[in-house]
Amino acid sequence: MRLHVAVPLRWSDLDAYGHVNNARMLTLLEEARIAAFWSVPGSAAPTAVLDTGPGSPTVTLVAAQRIEYLVPIPYLREPLDVELWIGRLGGASLEISYEIFSAVVDGERTLYTRASTTLVLVDRASGEPRRVSDDARAAWQPYIEPPVVFRG
Amino acid sequence: MRLHVAVPLRWSDLDAYGHVNNARMLTLLEEARIAAFWSVPGSAAPTAVLDTGPGSPTVTLVAAQRIEYLVPIPYLREPLDVELWIGRLGGASLEISYEIFSAVVDGERTLYTRASTTLVLVDRASGEPRRVSDDARAAWQPYIEPPVVFRG
Amino acid sequence: MRLHVAVPLRWSDLDAYGHVNNARMLTLLEEARIAAFWSVPGSAAPTAVLDTGPGSPTVTLVAAQRIEYLVPIPYLREPLDVELWIGRLGGASLEISYEIFSAVVDGERTLYTRASTTLVLVDRASGEPRRVSDDARAAWQPYIEPPVVFRG
Amino acid sequence: MRLHVAVPLRWSDLDAYGHVNNARMLTLLEEARIAAFWSVPGSAAPTAVLDTGPGSPTVTLVAAQRIEYLVPIPYLREPLDVELWIGRLGGASLEISYEIFSAVVDGERTLYTRASTTLVLVDRASGEPRRVSDDARAAWQPYIEPPVVFRG
Repeated sequence: MRLHVAVPLRWSDLDAYGHVNNARMLTLLEEARIAAFWSVPGSAAPTAVLDTGPGSPTVTLVAAQRIEYLVPIPYLREPLDVELWIGRLGGASLEISYEIFSAVVDGERTLYTRASTTLVLVDRASGEPRRVSDDARAAWQPYIEPPVVFRG
Repeated sequence: MRLHVAVPLRWSDLDAYGHVNNARMLTLLEEARIAAFWSVPGSAAPTAVLDTGPGSPTVTLVAAQRIEYLVPIPYLREPLDVELWIGRLGGASLEISYEIFSAVVDGERTLYTRASTTLVLVDRASGEPRRVSDDARAAWQPYIEPPVVFRG
Repeated sequence: MRLHVAVPLRWSDLDAYGHVNNARMLTLLEEARIAAFWSVPGSAAPTAVLDTGPGSPTVTLVAAQRIEYLVPIPYLREPLDVELWIGRLGGASLEISYEIFSAVVDGERTLYTRASTTLVLVDRASGEPRRVSDDARAAWQPYIEPPVVFRG
Repeated sequence: MRLHVAVPLRWSDLDAYGHVNNARMLTLLEEARIAAFWSVPGSAAPTAVLDTGPGSPTVTLVAAQRIEYLVPIPYLREPLDVELWIGRLGGASLEISYEIFSAVVDGERTLYTRASTTLVLVDRASGEPRRVSDDARAAWQPYIEPPVVFRG
């Protein structure tokens, strides 16, 4: 099962070419992960269950990222529709896969970007890697799908 | 009458002090102005009526800004509530006033920041200043209030 | 006496209008303050003497900023020449004045922006305001000049 | 042969974890590419020879990127030392490889990040892919080395 997160653009995401800057895309993916996975004290529960937000004993570090830009993204008032899922679940790490779409217009939508992020779970206090617990493994199970396939 | 724009934070708006960065506040105000004043082709009408977005023959240039930081802004999942209005309407320029609040929690909200932006209207083609038309003046009239008062 | 700090632009400082974004200007001023005033462990001494960088018991908070944009800044490979000085020295606060120039080309340079930042000195541990010490007052004396004058 | 580009950090490159943000790393790589490959009218010649800057008939589009974060990057006053080279030269595309190091301190330096960027050459006017000319191919030859090797 994929998670869907609506990520609004800002006008300042555009660079001098008038499209969303390539580096900024990773910021938008970060927002999608946070919306999907972090619980924030005093806020509504997140869509899903990673629970590595502020206050959690576990932190996730970004170990690697890969991204393919298929179509330049113009300024859009409607949020991007970021589909994300767990493409691989390891012992102390996981790989998030993404496909980033436009909103649906006239029954169609555009696939702008494919990406993946490798996250390593780390104990906030010690900085040591931390194995995915059985509880977490069970909770994440529904969101595991085959990893995104890159062209390149 | 004041306009209210909900401006979502991003986690990356925080700096190494763990609060929204002082420079980034101007980006959030930019987002509020765009949501309030720009019409974007193919999108729902903006809250109000400045109509200087992409495609309009008039562009607004930022000529000056002033900002007072009252309370540091932490990471918040709920959007900021930006109140903005026209504090002064000149011949070819206008001054936007802002008060930036937290969402209401338990019946209370926090005033984080006061700010103002001086915009100059410019013809897109010639770059020359462009007087506020009578139509625009009439349309903006309801949003004129006394300008925000700074402490300093 | 004014301090001169060379602040390099990045291409990503440009927005979709092809000029340095108005909000980003405050980031460039932040860089100029840091270069002028912070000492960073393991690095060469700063140009001057505020000493509120990482490790210092005193932190400076940005309380207010004001900025006037005179001429749009294009992409420049040569760093900006930021002149900054202390425009006002209070009991527990100070106001930095800035004038931001292009590099000198053919004996001429362009004044792009005028700005000021009000900083409040705060004890890092307690968060309480902290008076400017006599030592600091003496050290900063040479850099006091009349505050920048805004048009608006 | 590798190109070496000194890329200064900004304090605002740090995120709330106190390290250079993962998305911002791509901005730093962008700066390294620009310093190495763009000629800018009125500025000194670039280190190398891609010549796709403002004014050139050829534009490079970023088609894909890959990045591995080995060691978190703290705030550093000394610029990063970005080594970059051409890891693959195709018909109308090329792949830039990077290794990002700290400055040398006490005879040692830290390898922070490995990355690659796939660039596609495009005609500025028509938007069509544009083959690498024989002249460009000859000029770039010295900078071709085996592509960076990722762990993952």
